[in-house]
Amino acid sequence: MDLATGIGDFSRRDWQRIEDGELRFALIGLGWWTVDVAIPAIEESDLCATAVLVSSSTEKAERIAAENGVETGISYEEFHDGEAAEEYDAVYVGTPNALHLEYVETAAEYGKAVLCEKPLEATVERAEKLVEAAEGEVPLMTAYRMQTEPAVRRARELIEAGFVGEPVSVRSTNTQPLLEMIPDPDQWRLNPDLAGYGASVMDLGIYSINTARYLLDREPVLARATMRSDDEAFADVPDEVAEFTLTFEGEVPLEATASQNAQEGTSLTLIGTEGSIELDPAFHGEATLHVSKGDVRAEIEDTGIDATGEMREEFDYFADRVLSGGDIGPDGHEGLADMRAIRAIHNAADRDGTVDI
Amino acid sequence: MDLATGIGDFSRRDWQRIEDGELRFALIGLGWWTVDVAIPAIEESDLCATAVLVSSSTEKAERIAAENGVETGISYEEFHDGEAAEEYDAVYVGTPNALHLEYVETAAEYGKAVLCEKPLEATVERAEKLVEAAEGEVPLMTAYRMQTEPAVRRARELIEAGFVGEPVSVRSTNTQPLLEMIPDPDQWRLNPDLAGYGASVMDLGIYSINTARYLLDREPVLARATMRSDDEAFADVPDEVAEFTLTFEGEVPLEATASQNAQEGTSLTLIGTEGSIELDPAFHGEATLHVSKGDVRAEIEDTGIDATGEMREEFDYFADRVLSGGDIGPDGHEGLADMRAIRAIHNAADRDGTVDI
Repeated sequence: MDLATGIGDFSRRDWQRIEDGELRFALIGLGWWTVDVAIPAIEESDLCATAVLVSSSTEKAERIAAENGVETGISYEEFHDGEAAEEYDAVYVGTPNALHLEYVETAAEYGKAVLCEKPLEATVERAEKLVEAAEGEVPLMTAYRMQTEPAVRRARELIEAGFVGEPVSVRSTNTQPLLEMIPDPDQWRLNPDLAGYGASVMDLGIYSINTARYLLDREPVLARATMRSDDEAFADVPDEVAEFTLTFEGEVPLEATASQNAQEGTSLTLIGTEGSIELDPAFHGEATLHVSKGDVRAEIEDTGIDATGEMREEFDYFADRVLSGGDIGPDGHEGLADMRAIRAIHNAADRDGTVDI
Repeated sequence: MDLATGIGDFSRRDWQRIEDGELRFALIGLGWWTVDVAIPAIEESDLCATAVLVSSSTEKAERIAAENGVETGISYEEFHDGEAAEEYDAVYVGTPNALHLEYVETAAEYGKAVLCEKPLEATVERAEKLVEAAEGEVPLMTAYRMQTEPAVRRARELIEAGFVGEPVSVRSTNTQPLLEMIPDPDQWRLNPDLAGYGASVMDLGIYSINTARYLLDREPVLARATMRSDDEAFADVPDEVAEFTLTFEGEVPLEATASQNAQEGTSLTLIGTEGSIELDPAFHGEATLHVSKGDVRAEIEDTGIDATGEMREEFDYFADRVLSGGDIGPDGHEGLADMRAIRAIHNAADRDGTVDI
């Protein structure tokens, strides 16, 4: 037993292989997440640099580049034309879901490693094309930052070590008031042409799905779901509120709630035969690990890992793997598997029945 | 690093040497702590049994014995006369402080191991006699149950392992509303003839003193203190409220508050150059360990260790040591050293100055 090391090294980078090197990024899509979180995260990182910003117009890209001390700003069109291609080694794709494919295709064409935001694309079919475009050409990581979140990594180690006994069930919630955060009913997350199957499972439920899979180290095999959209702003998407169950191998259920129109709430609880593990908050910074076994209860958090800290860990992990030529944990196939789970969830809600994944 | 083991085995008995055996106790002094806490603790224990109860009259002792399924009840007088001496192997002395000496002398005479409540006696001189009476005759343990409290033991291990760096200071509080708990202004804790130097440092401050010494593994060398007694019930004792500072070797201060006339509050915080450790609550059951180092914060508790659980651990530790013939951690000399510190604290308050210990 070594509690001192366990706590003192809680946020250690057990994945780190290299100490030196630099991966220069082109950041594609300059929404608030890229500007407010990704750029500062790269600044904090050990192995990454922001070299190029890519947006709808050269003017916008250059303006935001100047504001953030970045050398080069180019338009999407210029990106596709290979402008400034010698200035970056990798791309971070942070555009609306339905636009991921085209940027990944271009990145692959120019031999640039790809860190692509989740969900991988708007539909399974497009996600398949995306994976195909990168495969054998360039490294591709799906940006599941929970997999490099220290509290989540420690939770997985505890489960692997048998701390909870056999997993019995997982309960996960990821909700937020999207229209208060971004007061625009025409935003892309509410537009199925850009978002894909829907608004809440694609954007929020995916955290529950992927984190449960990562913690359990198992695949989901069955989906059931109920969804509703009452608010006018959600008229075009089926899932203003979604409740879904994924049954993982070994009959372990994930019961999840996802909603873009509710009080912010993120938590994940995994109950086992001998103990339990809870992340609360779970998904958007400052993840806190709560564990219990018998009468012992423990709570551990790294208060320094806010959303930017999570992105810093993710960027450095990606850079570490690209620069060292190592395998990437959450690769394109994992992103694709989650797309299939999400499609099954939407189909299950449509049919009001159980769907095989 | 092994967080799973560290948390899963949080309350492990790292002190345990033997698995089988039985130490039969005579419990001397049947106040609420003995009846409500010590007797149930012995029932929960692995290695202890309650064989004899000793009180002011045979009648009272027999009544409480019958109520608690104990075979034999005898009076203090009968105890001194060796009545039922073949029925027990050890004594637990839970009488008012100023009566400890006589029971320990008798126990030593009959060759019975002694677990004596803290403070060891009413004065340093009487405590010296007590230690002398046992020395070379029978095992003597001062009943510092914090030393077998799992959260406190883990805290000490963390400090030993360098988790906090160099200790910088300790802050400790132990307060309770005595007259609400025992609504009797004539109770022994407010009577210096029975309690000794005072009411609050002797009964409550001693937790701060002994736990700080145990955690730091150092001796106190200087004392400063201020005390006051305003409430009529505290007219005979100087320390209705006491604030004292003990300077430990290496110039580490313990700043402590002790009061028998305040809201219940127990906590101990040890700040180091690189981290900190806090017990809150600290002293009367359900001790919770809070640690921080850098941005990492952790909180661990064993909710099964209430006051009875603490006493169970203490009784089993004592029995383990007596039955195995092993050295006892908090022995008579440690109890005596704390008595000297308490005397110095009272002297420092009297003189309004610093006193060497």
